[in-house]
Amino acid sequence: MRIEIWADVVCPWAYIGKRRLERALASWSGDPAEVVWRPYRIDPSAPAPGEPLADVLRDPMVDAALRGCAPHLTPGENRERVSRIALAEGLGPRWGAGWRASSHDAHRLIALAHEAGGPPLQDAVAEEVMRAHFVDALDISLPAVLDEVSRRAGFPAGGRLLADGAADTTVRELVLRGRAAGVATSPTFVVNGAALGGAQPPEVIHAFLAEAAGRSPRQLPEEVERLRHAEALLDLGDPLGALTLLRPLLDTHGDDRGTRLLAARAYFHSAQLNRALRILEPLAAQTPDDSYVQLLLGRTLQRQGDTGRAAAHLRLAAAMSPGYAG
Amino acid sequence: MRIEIWADVVCPWAYIGKRRLERALASWSGDPAEVVWRPYRIDPSAPAPGEPLADVLRDPMVDAALRGCAPHLTPGENRERVSRIALAEGLGPRWGAGWRASSHDAHRLIALAHEAGGPPLQDAVAEEVMRAHFVDALDISLPAVLDEVSRRAGFPAGGRLLADGAADTTVRELVLRGRAAGVATSPTFVVNGAALGGAQPPEVIHAFLAEAAGRSPRQLPEEVERLRHAEALLDLGDPLGALTLLRPLLDTHGDDRGTRLLAARAYFHSAQLNRALRILEPLAAQTPDDSYVQLLLGRTLQRQGDTGRAAAHLRLAAAMSPGYAG
Repeated sequence: MRIEIWADVVCPWAYIGKRRLERALASWSGDPAEVVWRPYRIDPSAPAPGEPLADVLRDPMVDAALRGCAPHLTPGENRERVSRIALAEGLGPRWGAGWRASSHDAHRLIALAHEAGGPPLQDAVAEEVMRAHFVDALDISLPAVLDEVSRRAGFPAGGRLLADGAADTTVRELVLRGRAAGVATSPTFVVNGAALGGAQPPEVIHAFLAEAAGRSPRQLPEEVERLRHAEALLDLGDPLGALTLLRPLLDTHGDDRGTRLLAARAYFHSAQLNRALRILEPLAAQTPDDSYVQLLLGRTLQRQGDTGRAAAHLRLAAAMSPGYAG
Repeated sequence: MRIEIWADVVCPWAYIGKRRLERALASWSGDPAEVVWRPYRIDPSAPAPGEPLADVLRDPMVDAALRGCAPHLTPGENRERVSRIALAEGLGPRWGAGWRASSHDAHRLIALAHEAGGPPLQDAVAEEVMRAHFVDALDISLPAVLDEVSRRAGFPAGGRLLADGAADTTVRELVLRGRAAGVATSPTFVVNGAALGGAQPPEVIHAFLAEAAGRSPRQLPEEVERLRHAEALLDLGDPLGALTLLRPLLDTHGDDRGTRLLAARAYFHSAQLNRALRILEPLAAQTPDDSYVQLLLGRTLQRQGDTGRAAAHLRLAAAMSPGYAG
């Protein structure tokens, strides 16, 4: 059974959730569990190199930006309680991050560890990254810190791979995949398509694992899943994210109608109207009876100010589907 | 034990979650449970009267806006699966909403039912509202529909109270309270300060209840909790929401320093600079050694273009707290 942990290594609940999952698995007698770490960003604009957290928290112009780090009922109370809870989970001896730092490169290192050594090496690297951030109060956006962390975890090649730029696209795409799949808190445990948000107590994680173990994982072909995730990002108001996921499909499946239509919608919603037209005009010529294509083409021309041609397509759309009128 | 369900009545997972909680409670032998419904909005811009859902889903310009209706892993897959899952939970016989409709008045009715008849009446009203929306495919933003729903649930006075405008502020404030407390999915179960997001299976809800029952609820005085929630909204980038919650405190505790400073920050972040100044100038005069007040006053004057006076306050702030320099 594969357990994905979608989490940010700068979210204290991710580290607490790791300990709680370990406790849940200690009494787990079902299928052997394999834990895979996936990236989530709670503070995507955090800088590299980092800035001292003490300054940030004092500055009224920068908010903590620690949204999406769950469970965050009563955030004020949370800030007081989190270190007490972390110490109770055996994390420490000292507890407390020192830096507001980008976690992008740390997520790259964690992805590379999985490629190089599978789940055990990846788990060791995730552990050392979070220890460096929360216990040693180091700036985990620095290459030297990540190199040392990687060596400590038994992955001496990690630092060099990071310097080579490896796993950059991988992590950017995985972050989009998570958002598309509905991950909205760190950590979120995902098993066979079921999700549990937050660093829930071990008993709750255990009940979740027991229930999710009985589900049959629905494995879609990679292209289909990528297309669905791109569509989900569009629904979530992220057309540029959708286009990032669509890019490889446009390169390899550029003649697929569904892919082209989705790309046209994403171009339309990100105001790249010429690119939308370059897809929609041939589509409309090929399938003139598709009222949806006519509508989107009409709206695109409308936004370009070409009201004459727009009206013709909008009339066609309305004639075929009365719901599109007006 | 009090179980709060923060949910939107137009979210299918809320209705499914209600059935699953009922199943979890059927085998519950702990403290007697009391269920209280709290408002959450998955689609705050949905209109009243509603618009036919079929049109909305066909129109490329309006997205489904069904974000925050959890669990929503793979939203595409969700749309296919939700009716199958609803039918499996005994909801039906027919399943499917007909309208994209504002749920604000339905939430008002549910709040009024709690005031009038406590948890049992409220639960009956929540049930009938969701049945009307998902099974009978009625437009639950219409007064006549809500009046009929209310009568069916044994709350004949509901329609008249709605027409009187009752519980409007109550619901608006509760929605802000939920956001401040970190509720980000519908449904979210909250017990003694612990939260479980999503319509999890009965076994998971049961484990959550068992764990949460052991926690001691931390009851803060109403004013303190209100202040914390206002602060949380400010952290979440919602200064106008923060001011909505602060208003009663400013009326009654207008001389409390913490309340005034928070209001000044909220005014600053919503670009109401004159209002921020009217609070900050007397505060700075009273406590000239408070570097934070000096910083905020300096930044406010800076944004008003009064660079001369701004510089004086920013220098003071930096002299007292070197972290504020630059």
